[in-house]
Amino acid sequence: MSAPVNNQATGYAVKDPKKYLDFEVTKYELEPLEDDRVTVAVECCGVCGSDHHTISGGWGPWETKFVVTGHEVVGKVVEVGKNVKQFKVGQRVGVGAQVGSCGKCKWCTHDNENYCPEPVHGYNTKWPDGHDHQGGYSTHIRAQELFVFPIPEGIPSVEAASMLCGGLTSFSPLVRHGVGPGSKVGVVGLGGLGHYAVLFAVALGAEVTVFSRTDAKKEDALKMGAKRFVATGEPGFEKDLQREFDVIVCTASSSKLPIDALLTTLDVNKSFVFVGMPEEGIKNITSQAMAGNGCSLGSSHIGCRTEALQMLDLAAKKQVKPWINVIPMKQAADAIKAVEDGTVRYRTILTQDLV
Amino acid sequence: MSAPVNNQATGYAVKDPKKYLDFEVTKYELEPLEDDRVTVAVECCGVCGSDHHTISGGWGPWETKFVVTGHEVVGKVVEVGKNVKQFKVGQRVGVGAQVGSCGKCKWCTHDNENYCPEPVHGYNTKWPDGHDHQGGYSTHIRAQELFVFPIPEGIPSVEAASMLCGGLTSFSPLVRHGVGPGSKVGVVGLGGLGHYAVLFAVALGAEVTVFSRTDAKKEDALKMGAKRFVATGEPGFEKDLQREFDVIVCTASSSKLPIDALLTTLDVNKSFVFVGMPEEGIKNITSQAMAGNGCSLGSSHIGCRTEALQMLDLAAKKQVKPWINVIPMKQAADAIKAVEDGTVRYRTILTQDLV
Repeated sequence: MSAPVNNQATGYAVKDPKKYLDFEVTKYELEPLEDDRVTVAVECCGVCGSDHHTISGGWGPWETKFVVTGHEVVGKVVEVGKNVKQFKVGQRVGVGAQVGSCGKCKWCTHDNENYCPEPVHGYNTKWPDGHDHQGGYSTHIRAQELFVFPIPEGIPSVEAASMLCGGLTSFSPLVRHGVGPGSKVGVVGLGGLGHYAVLFAVALGAEVTVFSRTDAKKEDALKMGAKRFVATGEPGFEKDLQREFDVIVCTASSSKLPIDALLTTLDVNKSFVFVGMPEEGIKNITSQAMAGNGCSLGSSHIGCRTEALQMLDLAAKKQVKPWINVIPMKQAADAIKAVEDGTVRYRTILTQDLV
Repeated sequence: MSAPVNNQATGYAVKDPKKYLDFEVTKYELEPLEDDRVTVAVECCGVCGSDHHTISGGWGPWETKFVVTGHEVVGKVVEVGKNVKQFKVGQRVGVGAQVGSCGKCKWCTHDNENYCPEPVHGYNTKWPDGHDHQGGYSTHIRAQELFVFPIPEGIPSVEAASMLCGGLTSFSPLVRHGVGPGSKVGVVGLGGLGHYAVLFAVALGAEVTVFSRTDAKKEDALKMGAKRFVATGEPGFEKDLQREFDVIVCTASSSKLPIDALLTTLDVNKSFVFVGMPEEGIKNITSQAMAGNGCSLGSSHIGCRTEALQMLDLAAKKQVKPWINVIPMKQAADAIKAVEDGTVRYRTILTQDLV
């Protein structure tokens, strides 16, 4: 693994949202290596639902001319900007769904850089100076030091990769809602995010209940450490669970979720947090339903550096093992198709085959 | 003011939801004076939006055969059950929108008796033993000691009355969301609840912004102590207020509220709390809109005893003066009509004329 030659990377690029399964090996210029940036040579990269939403145009028109997705990268540091303090060449690191922020606002300076109003996302994004940023289905990516995380020795690269977006997105609402030993946590939907919500809630010491439409994933949920599995397709599923949960993390993105019923399973003043993003708005919510237990319904965006480091430390200590399929990067289209078809169990990791 | 004769009260009762402005002076049997209950001779009673929703059948069929509304009572203790410890005959007290709870559950024993699953409301409700409870447009009411509050000397009865539901309903979400000196609080809607949200947020030391559809109540809002008034009918009203507020208390009950725009005015991980109850569900909410600042949308139900005592203490110390119209109880129909027409500025208080 070596530094980019002539500042160029090679990646699997999609050039037309109508042909989003056509990945073309493409050379492109990286953004400049500013003083606070690190260049990472990609070893592997997870495949996130966002990759599919973005390349297919489901989340709107692109910001860059073509898109190299991938924001769950593990690799080696091959270059550091002159102000970079924490990293040195050769170190194994990870980069998630954000690579830059202003670094100055009150959010950046108070463990909320994931809510900086001027974020630079993992791909399909531009730096404030206008340079494109492309993602990790590629040989190299660049990121500000703040968004580069050392990977603990005990975690294999392919297992760490999808923690950096999928894992962190599920972990942040758990810790921001105080989940710890004895907490009762509900997880709605068992896909990539949901499986991480279960694994991390269990690692934090919580008792976990998985809600899914049917019983199909019951066995998997229990193997992941969930104590209870509830099929929401059964009428009255919520009756025995009134005011049970300290937090519910919702990773499903169907607009047909029985939200009013799920809200009644929250203890008083507790929260239902969406990390899945239904393309339609949320319906069927009444403030009356929320007044019964004074609960709330919110959302969350990735997590901050402090949480990422805490998550990686927990994963190493508690031997958190994500359920992954590992395939070569040239099979990116298969991985995206599996996301679209909902057949991933539970995350695909692409390994480097361009160098 | 004396104890009930033959255990009977006299009240202004509505007997048919279709004729909800026909108040008939009616004698009825009070629930028994159990050992933990207090009898209060009513001196005055506030008129709440719930009174109108209930007697008109807007919140569904009645639980009792006729309804005497009124759950913002101030009066004198005229009888105490034998286990009552805090009150003695002759003492001035208040009773709000709840008169009973189980007293044993984890919510009752942890400052959340307002979320007890077996509540007895201020009227149109039955005790677990089947006895009806009627409200405060009457000579007498009975309540468990836990729901009776001593009124500080400095607060006139007519000013304390509507604090006991309207005031507490607005006060509880403020304190549960940590409002104090320097907090930035948004208040949506300036009716009875909204005016209390402004007064109490100001008394707690917060900087308050009022959101209302038009400019009509601007002058009033500023007189109440708000620093800023924003008309939400103006497109783009939210642009200069991005991430401004530590909490927004929503007292409006229109289902046409521009909620998505209002949510963007919350700081990261902060809450929009409904205390108004739109009859239709909440629409136009997207989890995407909430992910931008990781905010949440919740609701709240009255407040607990600890908060009621804190509110009354604050009102006395900071000389919180509600904006009220005081009229005799026999004019209850006029007061209800004014609620229906939205012409109350900002709470009507009925004074005793039945004894």
